[in-house]
This record gives sequence, C-alpha cells and structure tokens, in this order.
Amino acid sequence: MSSYTHQSAVTVLGLGPMGRALAGAFLGAGLRTTVWNRTPGRDAELVGRGASGAASAEAAVAASPLTVVCVVNYDAADAVLRSPAVAGALAGRTVVNLTADIPDRARDLAAWAAGQGIRYLDGSIMTPTTTIGTPDAVFIHSGPQELYREHQAVLEALGGTHTHLGEDIGRAAAYDLALLDIFWTAMAGYAHAVALAKAEGVTARELAPFARGIGALLPPFFSEGAEDVDSGTFSGEVNPMTSTVSSMAHIVHASEAHGIDAGVMRAAEGLARRAIGLGHGADGFLRVSEVMARR
Amino acid sequence: MSSYTHQSAVTVLGLGPMGRALAGAFLGAGLRTTVWNRTPGRDAELVGRGASGAASAEAAVAASPLTVVCVVNYDAADAVLRSPAVAGALAGRTVVNLTADIPDRARDLAAWAAGQGIRYLDGSIMTPTTTIGTPDAVFIHSGPQELYREHQAVLEALGGTHTHLGEDIGRAAAYDLALLDIFWTAMAGYAHAVALAKAEGVTARELAPFARGIGALLPPFFSEGAEDVDSGTFSGEVNPMTSTVSSMAHIVHASEAHGIDAGVMRAAEGLARRAIGLGHGADGFLRVSEVMARR
Repeated sequence: MSSYTHQSAVTVLGLGPMGRALAGAFLGAGLRTTVWNRTPGRDAELVGRGASGAASAEAAVAASPLTVVCVVNYDAADAVLRSPAVAGALAGRTVVNLTADIPDRARDLAAWAAGQGIRYLDGSIMTPTTTIGTPDAVFIHSGPQELYREHQAVLEALGGTHTHLGEDIGRAAAYDLALLDIFWTAMAGYAHAVALAKAEGVTARELAPFARGIGALLPPFFSEGAEDVDSGTFSGEVNPMTSTVSSMAHIVHASEAHGIDAGVMRAAEGLARRAIGLGHGADGFLRVSEVMARR
Repeated sequence: MSSYTHQSAVTVLGLGPMGRALAGAFLGAGLRTTVWNRTPGRDAELVGRGASGAASAEAAVAASPLTVVCVVNYDAADAVLRSPAVAGALAGRTVVNLTADIPDRARDLAAWAAGQGIRYLDGSIMTPTTTIGTPDAVFIHSGPQELYREHQAVLEALGGTHTHLGEDIGRAAAYDLALLDIFWTAMAGYAHAVALAKAEGVTARELAPFARGIGALLPPFFSEGAEDVDSGTFSGEVNPMTSTVSSMAHIVHASEAHGIDAGVMRAAEGLARRAIGLGHGADGFLRVSEVMARR
C-alpha cells in the first residue's frame, strides 16, 4: 500500500453531486481536503465534515499539490482553469481532470496546461456517485505514466479500481465516450421496449425479470464481439444479419402500429440493411461497426 | 416432476438451427420425436439419433398430439399450417408456435386455429440455440392456461425455465419483441462504441473489460427504471435528462468528426431533446419512454 506522505492534501474543484462524492471520499480517507464551487454554498456539508472551503478557485488550487476537477463539461473546466489567476497558482502543480467530454477537448486542455507549466492528467469516472469511496467505483486515467504513479495513492483514496490506460491524454475520454455510448444506447432500447410492452398491456415490472436476463446476456456478447471486431471476421453462423434485420423490422412495425416513435431502431435497422446491401447479409450484426465508419 | 405418459410423442416443424436444437433436446429427453422441414435433407442427423423423418407436414403433425413449430416467421408458419391437409390433420391436436413475429400475427393465427378446431399456444425462445436442452434456456409461453398445463411436461423437456405469461395469446410475442428491442438496440450501441473507440486508437479487446462492466450495470438500472416507468415518476436526481443529452451530444460530435454514422445516437438524443422541450429536463432519461408514445 502506498501512503499519502507527500500528497496528503487534495483540492476538489466542482461540487455537483459527483464532485461532492469525490471530496467526501477524500475526507473519509483522511486527506486534507480543500473544496471550491463556482456557485457558493455547495460546500456546507463537506466543511462540516472537516473540508476547507476556499474563497476562490485560485486559493483552492494553491492549497494542495493536486487538484481534482469535476465540473459539467470542458467549457466549465476551461472557464475555471484558464483564468490567469488559477493558471498562475497551478504552475508546478498537478491537475487531474475527471470532467467528461470528448478526447479532443482533453488533448487541447493538456496542450494548454503544458504551456503553463501545469502537470496534467485526464480521467473519467465510469460508475454512479453512490459508488464513490466503495469497491464498486471504476476510474480510468490517461496521461504521463510517471505523473500518474506519483498521484496514484491519493487517487486510490477514492475507492474502487483505477486503471491507467496509456500516455495518450485523450484515451480516458475515448473510453468514457465509448462506454457512455453503450450505456445510453442500451437505455434508449430499454425505454423503447417498455413503451412497446406497455402498448401491449405488459407493465415494466412484469417485463423486468426478463429484461434483466437479456441484460445479463450482453457482457458475454461484448466479449465475443470484441474478437470479431478486432479480427474483422463477423461470424453470422448463429445469428446472421438477415435474421437480425427481420427482428428489427418486427419491432419497428409493431411500435409504429401503436404510434410509438421507432427512430432509434429504424436507424439501427438502416445500418443493418446497408451492411446487407454491401453483401454482408450472412455476417453477424457487428459487421455494422465497420460499415458505419466507411468513408 | 411430471411424466410424459400421455404426451410421449412430439413433432417439430422447421429444422433451422433452432428447430434442430429443439428436436435434439426432445430426443435427448427420450421423447418419440417426428421432424419435418420444407427443404428436405435437414433431418439426417436427427434421424440418425432416432427421430422419425416425416415425408410431409401433414404426416408429421398426424404422428403426435403436440406439434412445435419453429420457422423463420409467421409467413412461413402460415404457409405450412394453413394448408388444408395440415389443418385437417391438426384438428383436435395442439400447436405450440415458437416462431418469432409480432403479437398481432400470433392473435391472427390463434383465431384461425380456433376456427379449425386446432388447440393453439404461442411462445418465444429468449436464449441462443446453444442453450436449448440446458438449464440456461429461457422460454416464454402464452395462451390458455389449461392447455399449457397439459403440455408443460413435454415443453419442459426442452430444458431451462418456462414461464406462462398469461392467456392473451399475443403476450409471448410482446415480451419477445420488447426483449429483442433491448438486445439489438444495445448491440447497436456496442457496434457504434467499438467503431468510435477504434477511430480513437482503442481496440475492441482493450475496451471489452470496461464494456462488460457497463453491461453489468444495466440489469439494476432496468429494475429501478421499471419502477419509474410504471409509476410515471422519473427521478433525475442522480442523472437528469440535461446531463444525459450532454453525453449524447459528445458522442454524436466525436463520432461524426471521425466520419462515423451517429444515426442511432442522434435518434436517441432527439427523443431526449424532445422530452426536455416538453419540460422534462430535470427528469431521468426514461421519461422518453412516455414521450415517444405520445400521440
């Protein structure tokens, strides 16, 4: 186990639900924690637990060798970090930016930070606020390996598993986007499924045990699918694209007959039909991952 | 445990991969099994294991009190069952139709069967062919309760769990569609995620452990979501629609910047923005299940 000897202080910028969870976990792990939020008054409970509430962002970052940023997006992160006073106070210190955005924004902010003498790591939080400080939390990080190692012990005070994905600073954001893509698309499918079920007289609670069963099938399909995607061979032996598209057409037909918007499934069906049109009808559905990226 | 005393013979119509798996499981359970397929020659392996290969569909259905149908869709099922010779041979016997299609087709076929004196149950198979005959198989059934009870022991010879969902004959098809909706929409999300990851230099294998982690988060969200959907209260405390739509916009932006079709996520984002426009920005994302069904 690493100790916090030289990094026993940490600053958290941004006290939305996730920022408060992060600061709370640092406090719970015994770190000297300074907090700041653009809108005042969000720090009351944390200060009550022993956090220092800073009067300004520059005072907050000056209080610790490491500042963890968790705000709504990079526009908000830029607005705080790129102010001259904050940038000046951060020179020689480390920022770990856990704000979610696209990889290019992470690269852009990292390039700016380098020019300011600010040491910069990017990261993403893959699990809900309730997991922070527990073994269920999942954090991913990217940026200079050595810098990550230096702050790893403090970051691990947040609980859960922490994975350094590589030196490309955009890597955590790329994973984050891809994983959010899976999550929110699946939730869109679930939302549509319960709307369709309801129109057929089936409640969401009645469907739930079966929905959970389908959800439990997904992880192994993701694993097998990864082999197909990386090798570029999409076996459709068990489930050819032509069979998938037939199911998709049934879903579109049945939901539109009930007046339910089927735009998400229509788009997925369109990709499958495009793949079939390109001669991939006997392939598995994941062939569309290649077709959708074709120039 | 029920025995097969009065129902020790079963016929399987349709010998695609799933039909062959069903017939194989019946044989494995010791039932006298008759098989038939429109395209000849598909029964060789099953006949080698002891099945009777019927020369015609009418001979096949005449051989057993119970006929299980598993063909590509209801057009195919109708083409076989509604021929006068087959309909005549089925009078007084039971059909369990495990063919996938929309609920209205099941209702239509059931109404026709009733007119012919054919006893009719509908069902769906929720798991891949490889699960048939194992504890992992999942079958759902709908139609007259008493008729289901009569044939339950034979159906359970297929292994796995069997659930009778109710007397509405379209109910199994409705569950089936809703569950396929979740599955294929989630797979479309996965396909898009790996395309986006690849464009960012991340392989599907690298993403896989995290993708599995996201997949494992889905079943509990489906359970919690079912409470929201049935009660019509969509708590956005942890994750408001405005935050979801920001993630969705990031995904669309980043993927289109790489030339990757984002039509599925664009459609999901459109639903979320429509919900926000209707004043539901502070609600959880599943509010879209109501918005998409609004007339």
